[in-house]
Amino acid sequence: MKKTGNQLEPAAANGLLDRRFFLAGGAGLAALAAGGARAEPLAIPEWTKKPGAWFTAYGQPSKYEAKVGRGAIVEHNPLYESGPGSVRTPLQFLEGMITPNGLHFERSHNGIPDIDPDRHRLLIHGLVKRPLVFTMEDLARYPMTSRISFVECAGNSGALYAKAAAAGTAQALHGLLSCAEWTGVPLALLLDEAGVDPKAQWLLAEGADAASMSRSVPLAKAMDDALVCLYQNGERIRPSNGYPLRLLLPGFQGNMNVKWLHRIKLTAAPTMTKDETSKYSLLLNDGKVAQFKFQLDAKAVITKPSPGFQLKQQGFYEISGLAWSGNGKVAKVEVSADGGKTWAPAALSEPVISKALTRFRIPWHWTGQPAVLQARCTDDTGYTQPARDVLIAARGNRAAYHNNAITSWNIAADGEVKHVYV
Amino acid sequence: MKKTGNQLEPAAANGLLDRRFFLAGGAGLAALAAGGARAEPLAIPEWTKKPGAWFTAYGQPSKYEAKVGRGAIVEHNPLYESGPGSVRTPLQFLEGMITPNGLHFERSHNGIPDIDPDRHRLLIHGLVKRPLVFTMEDLARYPMTSRISFVECAGNSGALYAKAAAAGTAQALHGLLSCAEWTGVPLALLLDEAGVDPKAQWLLAEGADAASMSRSVPLAKAMDDALVCLYQNGERIRPSNGYPLRLLLPGFQGNMNVKWLHRIKLTAAPTMTKDETSKYSLLLNDGKVAQFKFQLDAKAVITKPSPGFQLKQQGFYEISGLAWSGNGKVAKVEVSADGGKTWAPAALSEPVISKALTRFRIPWHWTGQPAVLQARCTDDTGYTQPARDVLIAARGNRAAYHNNAITSWNIAADGEVKHVYV
Repeated sequence: MKKTGNQLEPAAANGLLDRRFFLAGGAGLAALAAGGARAEPLAIPEWTKKPGAWFTAYGQPSKYEAKVGRGAIVEHNPLYESGPGSVRTPLQFLEGMITPNGLHFERSHNGIPDIDPDRHRLLIHGLVKRPLVFTMEDLARYPMTSRISFVECAGNSGALYAKAAAAGTAQALHGLLSCAEWTGVPLALLLDEAGVDPKAQWLLAEGADAASMSRSVPLAKAMDDALVCLYQNGERIRPSNGYPLRLLLPGFQGNMNVKWLHRIKLTAAPTMTKDETSKYSLLLNDGKVAQFKFQLDAKAVITKPSPGFQLKQQGFYEISGLAWSGNGKVAKVEVSADGGKTWAPAALSEPVISKALTRFRIPWHWTGQPAVLQARCTDDTGYTQPARDVLIAARGNRAAYHNNAITSWNIAADGEVKHVYV
Repeated sequence: MKKTGNQLEPAAANGLLDRRFFLAGGAGLAALAAGGARAEPLAIPEWTKKPGAWFTAYGQPSKYEAKVGRGAIVEHNPLYESGPGSVRTPLQFLEGMITPNGLHFERSHNGIPDIDPDRHRLLIHGLVKRPLVFTMEDLARYPMTSRISFVECAGNSGALYAKAAAAGTAQALHGLLSCAEWTGVPLALLLDEAGVDPKAQWLLAEGADAASMSRSVPLAKAMDDALVCLYQNGERIRPSNGYPLRLLLPGFQGNMNVKWLHRIKLTAAPTMTKDETSKYSLLLNDGKVAQFKFQLDAKAVITKPSPGFQLKQQGFYEISGLAWSGNGKVAKVEVSADGGKTWAPAALSEPVISKALTRFRIPWHWTGQPAVLQARCTDDTGYTQPARDVLIAARGNRAAYHNNAITSWNIAADGEVKHVYV
C-alpha cells in the first residue's frame, strides 16, 4: 500500500483501496464515530441498574435480532400438511464463514421427519461382501473426522438465469448456502468393513424422510472424502438438517448430501432415481441434459453492502462477502466497483479451507457517485467464475441449476443497493 | 503403522494404536455393526410414511437431545432475582472444535442484561487525544476481522486443586471452555482513531451489566490481537455472551473478554478493580499472589470416553478430546492408557489454529482390563502441560485458577469411567 500523507492510491477504479490498508495502520476512516467529549461520562442505562436474567440450559439469540431468520419460505399448499420447499440463510446479516445451526439453509422434499435416534438404522448393502446394519450407538464408536465444509443447493442463485434481474436480497438470491463444521465417520471405513465388490462403481444414498429422497453417488467420491455425519458445529445435527444422520459429500450439490440417511446400496451403475431424473439435471440450450454435474464451481457473493442496505453517507465502507469452490480452495477473490472494468484483490480471512466458505474483505471509499459492485472467485484449480453473459452464452437460460455467474449490486446516488445485470 | 495380518503393533501400552491406523486402511473394528442380512430390507419406520414438519425461521435441536444442555448451574439464593454464577458446556456430548452458540459456557457476575442495541454505546476515553463514542451502527461500518478462538474461564478445572479427586463429568470439571468463530473490529483500529497518549500502558474494559464487570488489560495486548466483537459463529453475539458487544482477548482468561462492553479507558497503570483484586488472582502456597497472570497455559481434556460413559464391551474405541493453548498453536497431544507411564501421539484435526480448540483423536483397543486414560498438550512454544502432582508441588493448592494439570480418567473392569488422581 502506497500512502502519501492522507493520499490513498486506489487499488482499482471507483474507490477500491488496497486490501492491506489497515494492516499498514491506515487511518482515513473519516470519523465514523461520533466525537466524544460531550458524551463523557456515559449515561448509566437502566440495564446496568438492576440484576440481569438468570441462565438457561440452551441459549437463544437476542429478541432484538428477530429479523434475522430464514426467510423466502415458499408458501405451501393449504391442502397439504407439509410438502417440498426451502428456507434460506440470511447471508446479509451474517459475518465470518460459519453459519449458526439455527440459520443453516434447508431444503426438504416432503417435510422434516421426527426420527427417534434409538430406532434409526443405517443399512449398507448391494454389491458388498456382507451387508451391515448400524445403530447410531454403533456409529458413535467408530473413528471420526471433522471438517469445515459448505453445503450449497444446486438451485442456489438460479434467479440469475432469468432474463431480467430479479429484485431480492443476498438471502433471496444466494441464501441456499451455508457452512458448518461437520463431524462423522468416513464412509470409506464403513464400506471397507462391508467389503466392496469389485463390480461396484456407484452407490445409492437414500433418506428416511417421506420423500425417500435418493441420489446416485460415484463410488470414487465415497472412498475419497465422504462422511456419514452425526454432528454439525459441535452438537448433534438438527432435525431440519438430517438428524440423526446425514451424508456429507464436500463440494457436491446440496441434495446429494442426503439427510436422514438410512440406506446405502452399492451398485454397478447409477440408479436413475426420481430425484436425479425429474430434477437436479442441467437442461442445456440445445435441449440436451448435463445429468451428472455434481461439483459446484467457484463463486463469490458480496454480502455487505447488498440489497436492503442503504448507504447513508459517502466515505469509507468495508466490502465483505463469501467465496467458495466445490473443487478446492479459494485462491483469489477480486472485487470491482465499476461493473467489471477494473478489479482489485480482496483480503481472504484465514483459515482458507478446501470446499469451505471463505470470507473476503476489501476497503472502499464511496464518493457518492453510482457504482456497480462485483466479486469473482478463482479457485486453486485456476478456474475463475464467469460473467453472467459469458455463462448464459455458453449454457443458455433453460437451466435451473449450478448458476455461478458474477452478481452485480448497483449502488445508486442515494445509496440504495439493487441487483442488476450489466 | 506396522500391520502383520490381524496383528496390530501398539503405539503405547494398554492398547493405544497408531494414530494413522485408519489412514492405512486398517480394519480390526471388531465388527461393531450388527451383521446385516437378517435386517435387509429395513422396516419402513412411521416417519417415512407421512409428510414431515414444515420449516421454521430459526431452527432448534431435536427433542431427543434435551439432555445436552449447559448444566452445573449454581443454585442461586432465592432471596435474589439473579446473581453471579456460571453454566458449563457439555463437552462430553460434543464433537469437533466449534461450540454451538446455544451451548457456549457462560459466566456472569450479576445476571444477563437485556440491552437495546440502538441505545448501547462504546466510549473510548482516558489517555487518548480525543475521546470517541461509537454506536453499534458506527462499528458495523468499520473493517472487521474473523478468527476462531477459544474462551476459557480462569476457574475452569479448578476442582483439580482439591485434595481428593472430585466426581464429575468433563462438563462439570472442564466445561467452562468453548470455542467459536468471532468477528469484530480490531481494537487497535479504534485506539488509533482515538489517538493513544504515549503515557498509556494499560486500559480498563468495563461491561454494561449490573456488576459493571471490569478488568485492566495491557495496552500491548489491545494493539496485538484484541477484537471488539459483534458476531459469534456468524450471527450477532447472544445476550448471555455479551450482546451486542464483547471484547475478545485471544488466549487470555475468560473474564477479561469483557461482555456487554461499553467503556474502554486508557490508563498509565492497572486500575485495580474489584474484579481483579477480590478475585481472578492466583493465590500461591507461600501466601503471595500472582496477580496478573493472563494467558491460559496449554491443556488437553479427553471427552470421549469420560465420566458418564460406560464401556459395554472390550474392543475398539476412539479416544477423542480437545487441546488448546493461550500462548499459540497446539503442537502435539500425547495420550496414555496406563496413567502416564507410556505415551502415544494423537492425530490433530485440521485446521490447527493459534488460540483455538484443536480436536485430537487416537484409536484404542480396550482389553477389558482397568486402564487410566490421560492426555497432555504441548504448544508451539515448547511448553508441555504438567502432571497434577508437579503442578501442586510448584503452586500449592490454595489457588482457584489456571489449573492446567493433566486429568486422569479411570476405566474400571466393568467399563465405568471415573475421575481419579494417579
